[in-house]
Amino acid sequence: MSGKRKRLPKLKNVPVLDDIERVHSIIKEYIHDTPVLTSNSLNELLGCEIYFKCENLQKIGAFKMRGALSAALSFSDKELEKGLIAHSSGNHGQGIAKAAQILGVPAYVVMPENSSASKMDAVKGYGAKVITCSNSMKAREETTKKIMDKKGLSFVHPYNDYHVMAGQGTAALEFLKQKSNLHFLLAPVSGGSLLCGSSIVAKELSSKIKVIGCEPLEVNDAERSFYAKKIKTNKSTNTICDGLKANVSEITFPIIAKNVDEIISVKEKTIIKAMQLIWERMNIIVETSSSVPLAVVMENKKYFSGKRVGIILTGGNVDLKKLPF
Amino acid sequence: MSGKRKRLPKLKNVPVLDDIERVHSIIKEYIHDTPVLTSNSLNELLGCEIYFKCENLQKIGAFKMRGALSAALSFSDKELEKGLIAHSSGNHGQGIAKAAQILGVPAYVVMPENSSASKMDAVKGYGAKVITCSNSMKAREETTKKIMDKKGLSFVHPYNDYHVMAGQGTAALEFLKQKSNLHFLLAPVSGGSLLCGSSIVAKELSSKIKVIGCEPLEVNDAERSFYAKKIKTNKSTNTICDGLKANVSEITFPIIAKNVDEIISVKEKTIIKAMQLIWERMNIIVETSSSVPLAVVMENKKYFSGKRVGIILTGGNVDLKKLPF
Repeated sequence: MSGKRKRLPKLKNVPVLDDIERVHSIIKEYIHDTPVLTSNSLNELLGCEIYFKCENLQKIGAFKMRGALSAALSFSDKELEKGLIAHSSGNHGQGIAKAAQILGVPAYVVMPENSSASKMDAVKGYGAKVITCSNSMKAREETTKKIMDKKGLSFVHPYNDYHVMAGQGTAALEFLKQKSNLHFLLAPVSGGSLLCGSSIVAKELSSKIKVIGCEPLEVNDAERSFYAKKIKTNKSTNTICDGLKANVSEITFPIIAKNVDEIISVKEKTIIKAMQLIWERMNIIVETSSSVPLAVVMENKKYFSGKRVGIILTGGNVDLKKLPF
Repeated sequence: MSGKRKRLPKLKNVPVLDDIERVHSIIKEYIHDTPVLTSNSLNELLGCEIYFKCENLQKIGAFKMRGALSAALSFSDKELEKGLIAHSSGNHGQGIAKAAQILGVPAYVVMPENSSASKMDAVKGYGAKVITCSNSMKAREETTKKIMDKKGLSFVHPYNDYHVMAGQGTAALEFLKQKSNLHFLLAPVSGGSLLCGSSIVAKELSSKIKVIGCEPLEVNDAERSFYAKKIKTNKSTNTICDGLKANVSEITFPIIAKNVDEIISVKEKTIIKAMQLIWERMNIIVETSSSVPLAVVMENKKYFSGKRVGIILTGGNVDLKKLPF
């Protein structure tokens, strides 16, 4: 690994705009400044002006690249040389694997044994070692701890981590610099790091922009927590959005409660329709999870009528043989 | 229709860079300045640096939007008010329909009766009138002439038209301004207007860049014509690239012969593999015809090794239910 890379100081508190700008100044050389796209036909259909920040076109096909790099670059040389570890069934694992590859250090990704072959192949393709475990969260955590302790690895949590949160916030930072006059900023919410990072950026850059977390109705823990003002959990995870099954946490929820204006949940069938519309009208590939904010606009047309709406399209890693539409 | 729109003077000769810049300065307010995307994983796989100019993300999902607008804006108010007519089974029809919609004038598109329902719907969706005819080119031309004469419409040919050619050239103009140090510029060739426009821009902007026309082996009229130094025709049109079945013409071929450095043809199965790679690695939707230049790089890895290769991705209008991979 090269010792010449610029590094990030450890974040001990909730990141502020300055922290997120510092993270961006360092990770930007490794990531894509993804394009902001628009579609006249979607605008006409929905009666508002929608701007899509295309993180599905980010490296590894998802915004998780940002948080993974931000976290990796906060470790010391000594820590990095031993290696990184994460547990993930999805894009966070790919982010950590790719970040480690970029930095020339080892990475281990613990994945449930029912993860798709294509996702495991992607992680391996970035040079990380995949360790499978049984499908429970407990098994993931125990397996991770065992290998971490044995090899002295540095663990990166997918969302309970201020560096990850600051990294995810760099997408909104680029977005609001590309398009500064939005009325709304919409992002999906799962564990909450993207929504936290985005809301910190939005609220410090503009007092006017409304930040809305978007969630499938089937896993609307964030919506219920937000209006109850305390953390509520999902009883089931019966949604096609496999990237949105996590619960908001004690780290992320207070930030969401403070910064976010609304959380809106939507039906599964609207999510599928939104996904199909994005594919057909925009010629880009997005995951189910990415399609939730557009579904929110579709189910609330009147509310967004005539407004400038920014949507973060979070990722595009789908199995092309298993489309839901 | 608004009489206040900026208009283009009639082009009587082969367009030069100045003409194409003038066209761009006028059509740019109606089109997307499409992003240039890269993929590390494709670069590693193929051993070169590839830059993709994403006209699949253009309005109507294809570069044909540019030529159609350029041609439409060269007509007088009187001509435009009567309306435009084109015959097309694909993207040119959509381009003319959309250009007419933007300008607020009528459009008629003659389409063979075996055109897909989705393509007819797209043309109708832009407000144009669709007239079906039997599937031969003769029937298309006769039907078009009849309606044109009856209604006094202005006809726009898909490639035998200097305004169309200049319009298509604006994609390369944006591309080479975004990325000026390319070793190669690759574009598909069918009737030839995109390759003509691109090569005019490339040769006037840089003496170093090599321009390569890319063609399916099954319809390699341009390749055979290029090396025989006279127009050869396709005996069959047995290719999955439904956008590349036309033949180079007496208008386009001399420009290709003068400006283009090479024409390379590729196998159908490489085109399908290239298409799948673009979908999977880049998360964007491209048509078969768009995938031919990447197939050229894949079949000639050594030739492009270590070079900066620019590829125009021409369009993304596919039937999502009928993928070839």
